[in-house]
Amino acid sequence: MAKAAGFTLGELAAALRATLEGDPSRVVTGVAPLDTAGPDQISFLIDRRYAATARRSRAGAFLVPVDAPGLAAPMLRAEAPQQALIELLSLFHPPIAAQPGVHPMAVVMPGARVDPSASIGPLTVIDTDAVVGARVRVGALVYVGAGVDVGEDSVVHPRAVLYPGVRLGRRVVVQAGAVIGADGFGYVFDGTAHRKIPQVGGVRIEDDVEIGANTTIDRATLGETVVRRGTKIDNLVQIGHNAEIGEHSILVAQVGVSGSSRLGRGVVLAGQVGVADHVTLGDGVMAGAQAGIPSDIVAGEKVLGSPARPAAQARRIWAAETRLPELLRRIRAAERRLQRLEGQLGIPAPAPRPQDEDE
Amino acid sequence: MAKAAGFTLGELAAALRATLEGDPSRVVTGVAPLDTAGPDQISFLIDRRYAATARRSRAGAFLVPVDAPGLAAPMLRAEAPQQALIELLSLFHPPIAAQPGVHPMAVVMPGARVDPSASIGPLTVIDTDAVVGARVRVGALVYVGAGVDVGEDSVVHPRAVLYPGVRLGRRVVVQAGAVIGADGFGYVFDGTAHRKIPQVGGVRIEDDVEIGANTTIDRATLGETVVRRGTKIDNLVQIGHNAEIGEHSILVAQVGVSGSSRLGRGVVLAGQVGVADHVTLGDGVMAGAQAGIPSDIVAGEKVLGSPARPAAQARRIWAAETRLPELLRRIRAAERRLQRLEGQLGIPAPAPRPQDEDE
Amino acid sequence: MAKAAGFTLGELAAALRATLEGDPSRVVTGVAPLDTAGPDQISFLIDRRYAATARRSRAGAFLVPVDAPGLAAPMLRAEAPQQALIELLSLFHPPIAAQPGVHPMAVVMPGARVDPSASIGPLTVIDTDAVVGARVRVGALVYVGAGVDVGEDSVVHPRAVLYPGVRLGRRVVVQAGAVIGADGFGYVFDGTAHRKIPQVGGVRIEDDVEIGANTTIDRATLGETVVRRGTKIDNLVQIGHNAEIGEHSILVAQVGVSGSSRLGRGVVLAGQVGVADHVTLGDGVMAGAQAGIPSDIVAGEKVLGSPARPAAQARRIWAAETRLPELLRRIRAAERRLQRLEGQLGIPAPAPRPQDEDE
Repeated sequence: MAKAAGFTLGELAAALRATLEGDPSRVVTGVAPLDTAGPDQISFLIDRRYAATARRSRAGAFLVPVDAPGLAAPMLRAEAPQQALIELLSLFHPPIAAQPGVHPMAVVMPGARVDPSASIGPLTVIDTDAVVGARVRVGALVYVGAGVDVGEDSVVHPRAVLYPGVRLGRRVVVQAGAVIGADGFGYVFDGTAHRKIPQVGGVRIEDDVEIGANTTIDRATLGETVVRRGTKIDNLVQIGHNAEIGEHSILVAQVGVSGSSRLGRGVVLAGQVGVADHVTLGDGVMAGAQAGIPSDIVAGEKVLGSPARPAAQARRIWAAETRLPELLRRIRAAERRLQRLEGQLGIPAPAPRPQDEDE
Repeated sequence: MAKAAGFTLGELAAALRATLEGDPSRVVTGVAPLDTAGPDQISFLIDRRYAATARRSRAGAFLVPVDAPGLAAPMLRAEAPQQALIELLSLFHPPIAAQPGVHPMAVVMPGARVDPSASIGPLTVIDTDAVVGARVRVGALVYVGAGVDVGEDSVVHPRAVLYPGVRLGRRVVVQAGAVIGADGFGYVFDGTAHRKIPQVGGVRIEDDVEIGANTTIDRATLGETVVRRGTKIDNLVQIGHNAEIGEHSILVAQVGVSGSSRLGRGVVLAGQVGVADHVTLGDGVMAGAQAGIPSDIVAGEKVLGSPARPAAQARRIWAAETRLPELLRRIRAAERRLQRLEGQLGIPAPAPRPQDEDE
Repeated sequence: MAKAAGFTLGELAAALRATLEGDPSRVVTGVAPLDTAGPDQISFLIDRRYAATARRSRAGAFLVPVDAPGLAAPMLRAEAPQQALIELLSLFHPPIAAQPGVHPMAVVMPGARVDPSASIGPLTVIDTDAVVGARVRVGALVYVGAGVDVGEDSVVHPRAVLYPGVRLGRRVVVQAGAVIGADGFGYVFDGTAHRKIPQVGGVRIEDDVEIGANTTIDRATLGETVVRRGTKIDNLVQIGHNAEIGEHSILVAQVGVSGSSRLGRGVVLAGQVGVADHVTLGDGVMAGAQAGIPSDIVAGEKVLGSPARPAAQARRIWAAETRLPELLRRIRAAERRLQRLEGQLGIPAPAPRPQDEDE
């Protein structure tokens, strides 16, 4: 991102709709973290865990929530400080304007249509009949397959691959190395070998989706693999064929969603979560890191662990597990005490009951 | 894949060796899933879970198993419906014929030999002394390293990397972004720093192997990392140096196989499974999703969990775990009852026995 | 790697500072594993597990530790046999000298500075103001973003991506497909949609770091994501924004380190380990494969499992878990015996105590 010159605190207060405590004519020239910010920079204290760091900070100003305690430099108090931080960063680092046009070392195949306002980087291939919309930025070394459709204002970073027929909505961001539309993993064992099921479906990525670096989203066997609008997908995530990811969901790094699974709206899967095939997750389901989800989960449920269980239950099990060795000792001690009591009372030890398992 | 014109149901019945119930002159122009198929399309009901969807489907015909219940449109009954589906999809979506020749924007280095019937995409590098066999299709932006051998009829999708010396058999498919032959992860700590063990071995991929998008298969330290014929590997899988994957195995997405491990024939590793180094898995071993395999497993065993245990045992443990908090309560209750009984009988409470751990 | 001609055992003994038992004039022409080595090749027995294989080996000579038992061919006994193996492999496979210069099909943008001793492969982009140092080797199809700095003697393998502003130290190795500097995964939900937090920080990779194939290291939101010197990172690893990885650490394949976490010096994370965000791992922490680390771990601790626990405790829990079904049976049996005793003594069964949970 480019870097703008400085702003006065007064200008920033106006832009961020924040209340300034301090000198409005003071100038800051950049944003920096609490520990490295100098007197010319503005920093921010949003997460209370960093309050001590903030008190030691040499920053020239701070962006803080409305109820933050005082600090040793001017403060901009914002109602929604996280969103104000987004504004602040955008002010100092405005997005680089795309240089419209096709780089002379790009390859645009016959039948491809590139909007004149789009920018195509060097050594990028736009294959036959692909359509690249207005103001799209395609980086270097990208492969845009035959018949692909890239919607307006999307950004495709260097070295992404869009297989033939993939459709991207508007304002989609694809990070480097992502592969969208590779064949789904479908085979039938014929007694001798695994025969490939032709993967002839497509992939549709809706508006405002972001896809992380080296993430893979497979094409459908038939029909479409779909990622609905507003969903954000981190790096190294795998999405299987015919999966459907609901709107405004969050898939953190290294998550795997198997074929034909359906995630509702606002689902949050933390890092390294795995979802089995043909599973349905209701709206708002949240799964903790490394959870393994073998079957459907109803809307709003929070799950943890592998196999995934409701979060409260999983936490109770984890707590109890640490006492398992102790539990073994206690049951053995109880058995000895029973034996002693039975001996005292002249009762013979009971015979084992094989059906105990089923109780 | 290209798309053929329509077929009559009579033609399809003959091609699929299926029994037709309905009008043989009726024409269908495509294959579609049950929920989106229209009267001009044929759909299929192979997985019984979708029977209700099939009854609601507007499809013009159905491919079904021989014993399927009747549906509201003509039915093609097939003995092996999954394989018939492969034929059906292939009829409507015949593979695109490769355009033989080297794209003018490809770079073929001195000493490389490309068969005239092979197709090399734009901005692809075929490095010194590489050999590309008959009818091979290499996509755009691929790197085929020095001395690589790509066997007949193989397909290398855009942006795959084959490091120097890698050998691919015939009919191998490499999806986009896969990296075959990067250095194995081998270091020796010399007391000050990790010193790299030169990775001077190779990688051999046998016939009919498929390798998923962004999957990585490392070269051997010495000798070869081997993937035997017919094995199918999904996306984002990691195969370490000197590993050996047996014939007709299935490695689902995000699996990791560590260095020097050996998988037998017909092994199935579900998503996100990890196999430690120097481990041997016998023929036909199956591991459930997210299993962690620290040591050898005998042929035919099914395992689950991390650390992996025989499936039946793992399931019993998972079931018992959910009762752990209850178990804690019950042991405490039993202890109180014991105390009461001992009090009644005037028996002193027993001293703890430290050796209990070892019983 | 290139391959040198043969050496006499006397030459090898001198180069490796090893003691030779056998004929110093004997010539070997290559290094090979025990099972495939022939009489013209030298093999090695460092890991005792392979002693039986060594006895059957047809190798013409062996590199062994000083205290190894005798074998049927000349032996080179080395004090530090693993490091001697590194020397041995390097002698037979000296690194290929870089051909200095920029390939005519590379794209070097205005303002980029490439040292004359560096080598730039075909179809590689060196973007505006990037600096490529002395003796650097950049492979084919690499993207080196605007303002990137690649330190002396580094190697960037084909198809890696260095986003704008990324800084690599000296002797850094980046394997194929790695993506360094993609946007961190940071969003704020504004009630309607996830709004992206501009990711305007950088990535700094220090000297002697190696980064595996298709690994992703995100840029910081502000400040820097840092990998300190000497650290080795395997394939398909994810490192989140603002993370800091200490010196001489080892991150095995498919590890995920979430944003803002800090790893100390000499940390070892085995395959598929996950570290949550804002977590601190002290120096020398070791985590077993698939461990899930939700919170801080003190220096020197070894952890296993998900959630991660001290290794000894995790092992005790795993052992106890296998006895869980048995434990359930034993508690039920004990309860029956209690009931019988209570009956005998005319004591009523106790009422359940709801507060048991809290004991």
